[in-house]
Amino acid sequence: MRAQDNSSAAGPFLPHVENGTGQSPVIFVCEHASNALPQPWGDLGLSAEQTRAHIAWDPGALGLARGLARRLDATLIHAPVSRLIYDLNRAPDMAGAMPARSEVHDIPGNAAISAAERLARTEAIYLPWANGLHNLIAARIAMGRRPVIVTIHSFTPIYHGKARAVEFGIIHDADPTLALSILAASGQTGLNAQLNEPYSAADDVTHTLRLHATPYALQNAMLEIRNDLIATPEAEEAMAERLAPILSAALRAEERAA
Amino acid sequence: MRAQDNSSAAGPFLPHVENGTGQSPVIFVCEHASNALPQPWGDLGLSAEQTRAHIAWDPGALGLARGLARRLDATLIHAPVSRLIYDLNRAPDMAGAMPARSEVHDIPGNAAISAAERLARTEAIYLPWANGLHNLIAARIAMGRRPVIVTIHSFTPIYHGKARAVEFGIIHDADPTLALSILAASGQTGLNAQLNEPYSAADDVTHTLRLHATPYALQNAMLEIRNDLIATPEAEEAMAERLAPILSAALRAEERAA
Repeated sequence: MRAQDNSSAAGPFLPHVENGTGQSPVIFVCEHASNALPQPWGDLGLSAEQTRAHIAWDPGALGLARGLARRLDATLIHAPVSRLIYDLNRAPDMAGAMPARSEVHDIPGNAAISAAERLARTEAIYLPWANGLHNLIAARIAMGRRPVIVTIHSFTPIYHGKARAVEFGIIHDADPTLALSILAASGQTGLNAQLNEPYSAADDVTHTLRLHATPYALQNAMLEIRNDLIATPEAEEAMAERLAPILSAALRAEERAA
Repeated sequence: MRAQDNSSAAGPFLPHVENGTGQSPVIFVCEHASNALPQPWGDLGLSAEQTRAHIAWDPGALGLARGLARRLDATLIHAPVSRLIYDLNRAPDMAGAMPARSEVHDIPGNAAISAAERLARTEAIYLPWANGLHNLIAARIAMGRRPVIVTIHSFTPIYHGKARAVEFGIIHDADPTLALSILAASGQTGLNAQLNEPYSAADDVTHTLRLHATPYALQNAMLEIRNDLIATPEAEEAMAERLAPILSAALRAEERAA
């Protein structure tokens, strides 16, 4: 079903919030948690195999985020819809928000999106998400608890035919403080951990941090795990067990510095 | 009625939007348009004279903003509630959001605000405002129109006993581009125009710009008019007539530079 035929009623698709009363300062954010392709958009002309691949979502990211949220007693907010319909880590005018192409795949249903359809997806998916996350953050701030925003992503080991050596990417926007603390603590994981890899804020991948953390001067970081390391529920749990102490150590370092 | 007794149900108090279909790129924002003191908060223990004074709102700002919006065919969004209950140009954890003192006046109803009351005001007033403004902005961006955010304020000619010479203050946050264009065009107004006077971003007065304009890299400025110059409906109209060509000239300068 082509997008431009469906610019009228849809949604709103509300974000999923888990453990809303979590006591950790961290709010985990998983913008690419879902490969759901609901009506009126449907499969956008993709094959079932494509809709299971990393172009539709970040495989393993939600399971890892849930494992981390449970271990830290943190709140988790995650996307209800595939990033192929709306990539929640992009502003509505970015090409990647409703991508016509992702890595080597054309997305037929996104080939020719009208302004009305762009608006419809923004109002059905992006705004309920962004305002829902803002509600969580502002409520914490009002109660005198400054949240720490940590987004959880996964990346593909092979991209445009090239293998990626990095296993754990730690990305920051304007303020590198928390990212540097996480990097400093990450030695004990045994992972190949790199700052601002496999991409960085210069690639416009930090929209969530820019919109939600930076204006309130909240500590923040974007974590990227290579998806072959979190390819099963057991692997997701094992990675959560490996990364939770790193995050806790970085948060303690922040508290000492504050 | 004391605030801490009323932390339960109130609102939401939705922002007022006028000329939502305006064709100008400008969205005028008037955070201090209103001196309304609705229940359950009421007059916060202030006299009727105090609730008409500049501590409760920016006298003249709404009339000026309306005059500008009409002349430019721009959308205007303005506050439904006095800044004494919630100052919409402040984050929920800033002291000025629900001020216990304003200039030389104590605000009895804000003397001891509990976390629950701070949350209640944030959810009843700040979040509907901020999310409403975000909805306007993101919808424009989705349709390929990049809005220009211009906030309209007024300031008192005498502050803490000292007279202010500046008549027209032009304040910027991170990006000074539009503010500098407005300053450059303001010579023809005959007003004493000053950059970052009577205060600046360093005084934490640019929350709206920081939260709504900077993350989307939107052009923005905060305009401050001395309130003795807009003390009657006729004076508001005359000032709108004087400033509209300045804004139009600055916007044209921006378009040429883009």
